[in-house]
Amino acid sequence: MSVQRLKRVLVGRPIPTSLDQHERLSRVTGLAVFASDALSSVAYATEAILLVLVAAGALAFRASLPIALAIAGLVAIVVTSFRQSILAYPKGGGAYVVTRENLGRYPSLVAGAALLIDYVLTVAVSIAAGIDAITSAIPPLWPYRVTLCVAGVLAIAVVNLRGVREAGRLFAAPTYVFVAAYLAMIGWGFTQWLRGEVPPPPAGPLTSAPRADELTLLLALRAFASGCAALTGIEAVSDGVPAFRPPEAQNARQVLAALGLILIVLFVGITSLVYAFGIVPAAGETTNSQLARRVFGETPLYFLVQGVTAVILVLAANTSFADFPRVASFLARDGFVPRQFANRGDRLAYSNGIVILTILSVGLLVAFQGDTHALIPLYAVGVFLSFTLKQSSMVRYWLRRRGMGWPSGVAVQGVGATVTGIVMVVIAATKFAHGAWIVVVLIPTLVVAFIVVRRHYDQVARQLSVDGARPEPPLTAHTVLVLVGDVHRGVLRALRYARALSPDARGVYVEITAEQTHRVEERWGRFADGMPLVVLRSPYRSVAGPLLEYLDQLQRQSADHLVTIILPEFIPARWWQHLLHNQTALLIKGALLFRKGVIVTNVPYHLEE
Amino acid sequence: MSVQRLKRVLVGRPIPTSLDQHERLSRVTGLAVFASDALSSVAYATEAILLVLVAAGALAFRASLPIALAIAGLVAIVVTSFRQSILAYPKGGGAYVVTRENLGRYPSLVAGAALLIDYVLTVAVSIAAGIDAITSAIPPLWPYRVTLCVAGVLAIAVVNLRGVREAGRLFAAPTYVFVAAYLAMIGWGFTQWLRGEVPPPPAGPLTSAPRADELTLLLALRAFASGCAALTGIEAVSDGVPAFRPPEAQNARQVLAALGLILIVLFVGITSLVYAFGIVPAAGETTNSQLARRVFGETPLYFLVQGVTAVILVLAANTSFADFPRVASFLARDGFVPRQFANRGDRLAYSNGIVILTILSVGLLVAFQGDTHALIPLYAVGVFLSFTLKQSSMVRYWLRRRGMGWPSGVAVQGVGATVTGIVMVVIAATKFAHGAWIVVVLIPTLVVAFIVVRRHYDQVARQLSVDGARPEPPLTAHTVLVLVGDVHRGVLRALRYARALSPDARGVYVEITAEQTHRVEERWGRFADGMPLVVLRSPYRSVAGPLLEYLDQLQRQSADHLVTIILPEFIPARWWQHLLHNQTALLIKGALLFRKGVIVTNVPYHLEE
Repeated sequence: MSVQRLKRVLVGRPIPTSLDQHERLSRVTGLAVFASDALSSVAYATEAILLVLVAAGALAFRASLPIALAIAGLVAIVVTSFRQSILAYPKGGGAYVVTRENLGRYPSLVAGAALLIDYVLTVAVSIAAGIDAITSAIPPLWPYRVTLCVAGVLAIAVVNLRGVREAGRLFAAPTYVFVAAYLAMIGWGFTQWLRGEVPPPPAGPLTSAPRADELTLLLALRAFASGCAALTGIEAVSDGVPAFRPPEAQNARQVLAALGLILIVLFVGITSLVYAFGIVPAAGETTNSQLARRVFGETPLYFLVQGVTAVILVLAANTSFADFPRVASFLARDGFVPRQFANRGDRLAYSNGIVILTILSVGLLVAFQGDTHALIPLYAVGVFLSFTLKQSSMVRYWLRRRGMGWPSGVAVQGVGATVTGIVMVVIAATKFAHGAWIVVVLIPTLVVAFIVVRRHYDQVARQLSVDGARPEPPLTAHTVLVLVGDVHRGVLRALRYARALSPDARGVYVEITAEQTHRVEERWGRFADGMPLVVLRSPYRSVAGPLLEYLDQLQRQSADHLVTIILPEFIPARWWQHLLHNQTALLIKGALLFRKGVIVTNVPYHLEE
Repeated sequence: MSVQRLKRVLVGRPIPTSLDQHERLSRVTGLAVFASDALSSVAYATEAILLVLVAAGALAFRASLPIALAIAGLVAIVVTSFRQSILAYPKGGGAYVVTRENLGRYPSLVAGAALLIDYVLTVAVSIAAGIDAITSAIPPLWPYRVTLCVAGVLAIAVVNLRGVREAGRLFAAPTYVFVAAYLAMIGWGFTQWLRGEVPPPPAGPLTSAPRADELTLLLALRAFASGCAALTGIEAVSDGVPAFRPPEAQNARQVLAALGLILIVLFVGITSLVYAFGIVPAAGETTNSQLARRVFGETPLYFLVQGVTAVILVLAANTSFADFPRVASFLARDGFVPRQFANRGDRLAYSNGIVILTILSVGLLVAFQGDTHALIPLYAVGVFLSFTLKQSSMVRYWLRRRGMGWPSGVAVQGVGATVTGIVMVVIAATKFAHGAWIVVVLIPTLVVAFIVVRRHYDQVARQLSVDGARPEPPLTAHTVLVLVGDVHRGVLRALRYARALSPDARGVYVEITAEQTHRVEERWGRFADGMPLVVLRSPYRSVAGPLLEYLDQLQRQSADHLVTIILPEFIPARWWQHLLHNQTALLIKGALLFRKGVIVTNVPYHLEE
């Protein structure tokens, strides 16, 4: 029972269902929980753009400003359409639910697959970038970054298994400190720039003569595609409407507007300053870290920026820990993923979803060795695919209902769907060879898996349905076999039980050596009170083989002959003592699992010490 | 069932017990199987000596000749005493069995622990040295040596799981090719040396000016201790007497004598030649490889020597795969390790011992990164400890029996015990800090574990004993509870069974929502044919909690009230479909495992697709 105790310490005591309502989030904590993913992407989006542009030389960095503005416009379009969709789905509707209701099953499965993949990637990218922020400030930690990544994911998993309210509280403070610190950095940086105080770039290999090649359209599009990582996480608010306190829809819309505004200010501000300060991506230090170091010098403020960046990024993964299990539970309720994902654990969290998300994202971090910019090409395809599906669904929604304000609904969502659809194609095409192909292959694979799972559940339901069934007639023949390896007190207990079940009870013994058989037969005669003992020969030392043959023989006698096989077992007082005993019972159960007309029962005898 | 099929392909079809006799070894194959460990140690023992002497400079290499001769004398002493002990134990007696019979339980447990540890080390050291031989000849493979080590262990494990005769056949040829190739190398090398044709040592850093410090006694003892690795594996023949064809004892004695002779010739020959050729240990190439290269040049003969060295070393590990499971099975029959180690698998091999040995030796190889000379300090302590215990036991044996020739028996074994005891202390003392301490700590730890396991088995036997027991009286009260989550065809099947078991049968349903309860009650009314349904409330969404409370309530009514809980379950047609269903049944079984007076039974309903 020590595993139970460990779970209590880590996860806390069970919470009754009746307390569900009180786990809701206020606007202030809601912004903290759902904003961290979207806001934290400013930690790597600017660098992602520059890492593409650097191929065309430092002069090409000029292009980062119009690219950042285009992405800001994209943010505005997406936020507008999502705020409108909250109005239509006040009970909360992520891409999966909205697509299912408006476009039907198959598009919704594509959306579901895209969402699940992206939540896993959110965890991996956010954690990797968070550890980047730490190792930028403390270079000696660099060799340990994969270990640090894994530790970060596990820590968040434990917090989430404790339940959603405590998670919200824990995350509120850092989100606001992050916003304040970044606004301070941007403000002070611009002040320095306006005063003409921007210091010259530091000497050294970092800035030495980048090539001044021509900037091609393809390169610009790839840079834009990389920067679109800034939009990831925006969907979290509209997926999570039911987590807000009432009035849920109104609170969620306000939070989403605030989130969009802050995101645009931070992202455009940082990209502009990085350009103004002439910062170039470097190995071992993020561009944001370089910027903070230049604005604040090596003061405590610099370390505050890096620290809070790390914290918000590590916590950003938390958005996915709220959303992955939720989407998985929607899919589970519809029968497309295993039912277990619809169960809430004893702390009201969807524990199975949390555990799977942890395993997948740790696997990804280890496989990619915690390299943020190697993960980013996989990232945005699924996000924009789900945006497009959701916005297309909303177009359909407004066209069907034609309620108040439907023309503006169609216009907002139509523009959104068109723009995000084009962006998705741009990302998939320009990033295909860099990793986007993985996601392009994975999404249809997952959709097929969903369909296979659903078909299985449908078949099970059909076969188990009691429509047209009648109560079964009483059993005609029931034989009880007590399988014995020796005659001990546990066997005596089992014999008593066997006698209570059926008048046709027999012992069965599989012979190892003739000598042992004599001993067993002698004791059986003394203790079995007249019950017959069947001795079976076993040339291959297997117990299952002769037993199966004997069952064939028994059941050939009548069509409806049920056999109960009783396995006497003793239960040791301590768990480790189980390892010291043969698991023959388990093997026999396995061998008989697919056999009809046979029921296997363990009759336990509890040892005291 | 696909795991079953994979096992068949790798391991082969089951072998009946009646074929046991035919698995015996002739002298020729017996030498091959049991000699590989002892002979293969000439591949690393000479280098182990030189690696210690090198600290005192190249002049100290002179000392390698007297050290080799001392070790040859040690081989003669040990072989003589072991041949004599086969005479006394014609049914085979390793250190464990012989010590148990003559010195009693605790010394025999020390011997058993020492043997198990050394078999694991034999696998690790032999495989590591075998891969050294390969990478000496093919340097580009060096970076992959840990992977190669693991692959080698796994290959041998599979061969052994197939059974002992096939293993013998496979290993006979390489052992004889090895002996022939080494004799040819030694013969040709001495011819070159006698003719004065020995070429000067090659130029380069390998031979550049070693220091000419003074050779201390401690250093000489440490070099001797390292060289004693040459004796490892000699005990295999006397442990494995029953594996020989009749007359077992006579065949085993002849094989042991041949083995000792070949070992002395090869070891002294190689050590002399390495000294004569002025070879110095070097990183990346073994001294044996350097010797073979100098004697044969880079001809096919050189590659033959390296190849067959690698093969015999990789196969040497096979000795342990015969012996570790055998000693473990002796300990298991005496109740000191889990009983499962006494079971033979369906190919007549002790499968569990083979599996555990594989896991431990792979772990050791990975932990020590396949470094032969880092593993050697751990190696010989246990070997010599078991030699000493066995020889001391034989002294006791002859003193007790006083049969024909007892004085010479006492003399041979007494000299052996004294010499090997001193050597053991020398090894433990001079190699303590280099790793021998691990074994010094591990042996008593294992002995304590053996005693704890045995005490548990004794307690179980006492509690299960039918001495003084009587047949149990018939059951007075038996309630059958059918646990339902919904009413489906599987439940109808379970209801029929419940009715057959006891007139007091009831349904139990744990309420999730009131709405679902109504649905279940309605269907229950239609199909349960009047059986009562008990509805339990569950504030924490747990099924086990309310069920346990209800059981308390039921069983409080009478002292001897047995309850059978029936879990209706459906068995999907394919194994992967199990993953798609809740494992509630398993959780409930776990929760009730330690509860007395309760028997849990699954009633299966088999699905067709």
